[in-house]
Amino acid sequence: MTARRPAFARWLDDKNEITRMFLAAGSIPNLVNLAGGLPEPSTYPVEELAELARRAVAEHPGDALSYPPIDGLPALRDALAAKYATPALRLTRDNVLITSGGMQGLDLAGKALLDPGALIAAQSPAYLGALDAWRPRAPSYRPFFPDRNDFDPDAALAGAQFGYAVPNFSNPTGKLVGRDARAAMVCAARATGTWLVEDDPYGALYFDAAPLPSLQELDAAHETGDGPYDGPVVYMGSLSKQLVPGLRVGWVIAAPEMIAALTVAKQGSDMCTSGLSQRIALDALEGGAVARALPGILSLYRARRDALCAAMDAHLRPWWDWEVPVGGMFVWAVARDPAMNTDALLDVCMAEGVCVSPSSVFDPAGEDRRALRLNFTLNPEDKLAEGVRRLAVATEKFVARG
Amino acid sequence: MTARRPAFARWLDDKNEITRMFLAAGSIPNLVNLAGGLPEPSTYPVEELAELARRAVAEHPGDALSYPPIDGLPALRDALAAKYATPALRLTRDNVLITSGGMQGLDLAGKALLDPGALIAAQSPAYLGALDAWRPRAPSYRPFFPDRNDFDPDAALAGAQFGYAVPNFSNPTGKLVGRDARAAMVCAARATGTWLVEDDPYGALYFDAAPLPSLQELDAAHETGDGPYDGPVVYMGSLSKQLVPGLRVGWVIAAPEMIAALTVAKQGSDMCTSGLSQRIALDALEGGAVARALPGILSLYRARRDALCAAMDAHLRPWWDWEVPVGGMFVWAVARDPAMNTDALLDVCMAEGVCVSPSSVFDPAGEDRRALRLNFTLNPEDKLAEGVRRLAVATEKFVARG
Repeated sequence: MTARRPAFARWLDDKNEITRMFLAAGSIPNLVNLAGGLPEPSTYPVEELAELARRAVAEHPGDALSYPPIDGLPALRDALAAKYATPALRLTRDNVLITSGGMQGLDLAGKALLDPGALIAAQSPAYLGALDAWRPRAPSYRPFFPDRNDFDPDAALAGAQFGYAVPNFSNPTGKLVGRDARAAMVCAARATGTWLVEDDPYGALYFDAAPLPSLQELDAAHETGDGPYDGPVVYMGSLSKQLVPGLRVGWVIAAPEMIAALTVAKQGSDMCTSGLSQRIALDALEGGAVARALPGILSLYRARRDALCAAMDAHLRPWWDWEVPVGGMFVWAVARDPAMNTDALLDVCMAEGVCVSPSSVFDPAGEDRRALRLNFTLNPEDKLAEGVRRLAVATEKFVARG
Repeated sequence: MTARRPAFARWLDDKNEITRMFLAAGSIPNLVNLAGGLPEPSTYPVEELAELARRAVAEHPGDALSYPPIDGLPALRDALAAKYATPALRLTRDNVLITSGGMQGLDLAGKALLDPGALIAAQSPAYLGALDAWRPRAPSYRPFFPDRNDFDPDAALAGAQFGYAVPNFSNPTGKLVGRDARAAMVCAARATGTWLVEDDPYGALYFDAAPLPSLQELDAAHETGDGPYDGPVVYMGSLSKQLVPGLRVGWVIAAPEMIAALTVAKQGSDMCTSGLSQRIALDALEGGAVARALPGILSLYRARRDALCAAMDAHLRPWWDWEVPVGGMFVWAVARDPAMNTDALLDVCMAEGVCVSPSSVFDPAGEDRRALRLNFTLNPEDKLAEGVRRLAVATEKFVARG
């Protein structure tokens, strides 16, 4: 006799049907998939990385094949401290944790900071992966909107365990948080005592403008004393969008007490990040592979952004509004009709052969049904245009149905 | 003005001083460290892995450099299903999840199965890393002892979210769970409906005897129907102890519904495991690198186990009892005096220049002070003997103090 099994943890009941639809999308022939957020594989420097991989093992077997320290290879931590340091932002190895991709930084922040029911102040709409990472800890959310005129960062952050922001080309909106709002947010983080997680996977992807200073750079001006950075900003970066995602190397730059807490959390999560990946990442950063790959990535993505937005201009104006992003991977289209339901529209889109991301999945409350996220990095220009044409047909049919 | 920061999550208060002492051990000159659990780096097939790493990137850039599927490269999942399948144990890709090292499997099981306060039935003493992985979810523990005459597996497992066992060369005791106890445990898992996590990092390390069947192999005899394995055993394996730990590749073999739940948990943990590491693991398994490395590992570890146990026989008999393990990485020494306090003894050991693992860290309740774990895989034979001599001196001094 076999008895009934125990239930899974409660958070696993919190499914969304959209994810299931995305998974199904992979097997539909001729579908144009604008829903994802993947880099373009033709930008990967394959031969150079093959040689770096061989050398990592052959010349540094101790680093590449043994257990690296939980917090990462010291040389890689030093290299990242040097990369991000400015005269005001003093960083040492103790400010740096290596993570298994950017996603792990989010998971570890949740593990270190969230008791059940804790409050997160989240720039909204918010990255779906962050919501996924924190769901098992059942947080509550207070959304904030840094681009609105009435944005009050003190009210946004007060009482939260941490604030969560994606200042550069937010996923999903592709928008920048402006310099003034950035400065206001770091002041508020200090005034309220709240940690401020700055998630920056897209910071290297400025196509048309000089990069704005990071929250952490701005915050460093408030530091007193000569020690390493000890402020409230917890910066997260990764190689996934500026080199390749398959190495799964990300990093957290933060106050040493935060790095120490995240390291305890990492020990019980995966012990350490692949030493082989870390050694390749170090050599790619220091040997210039990352810097050499970037111009090609930027020109390809800029052209694709232009192609997507040109097609949108030609086909979508009757129903949708958007801003052309100056970088990143996404365009955020908001329906002119506030009664739009993009969850329902998605069914029609799939029938027309185009997949897009509806806004509900980026809303911690799951309620926003008015917008869509469109990705422009993975498809060639003609396919982007075809996808937009299909989205226009789908929108017209959906609206006609009433 | 900077306000006070929010507290870290409560589980982070649950520090132990032993870990701090272990960390300090690394910087003490001439210390003999018998406390760890690391493989011997000279067993790593460096040149072969360097070539596998190069080929993984050059010949399979899509696998190695892009985001692999959350649940792992299909070819690696297929290879592992084929490796573990028997006529009774039917396995397909849907039974297999690739994890970022064995530790991640434990973290994901906790994430998928533990709401706060849930009960774990744990073979005791238990692996410290498993206790670390589950600590953030604040479980309660019911210890069980499969080698005792009064072991009642139904009573052990009933009402638990899952049972946790390390049947092959348990960390910390190095003991095998016998065949009868294995069979009784899988029957109990079915009778009580409890999941049974079979953690098997050391299963390849049988030095002197033929391997016993795994819990999952034994459980497969209870399966009805012709479908893939759907029983309660959640088997966890890894490459760390049979090839190299630095790739961070582990796996879970379980019922498809469990694999699906763990995959959702993995998505929000690190999205996916390094494709480069997965590709190397696949080629090392299929190309024979793993099989070729094993005989050298076994003969080296066998000789070191013999050296450690010979030195123990020569020096430790007045105070300690132990069994010579037939494999694995550890010997478990239990004090003849039930009033021994190995936490306190550790201070004396450190002063004598030897570091060992006291039993308290392997007890979910933190109370067992009578035993020590000694590792024999990392040090050469003369150093093992010297470490044991120092442990004898430390024990004698400690006992003399009264």
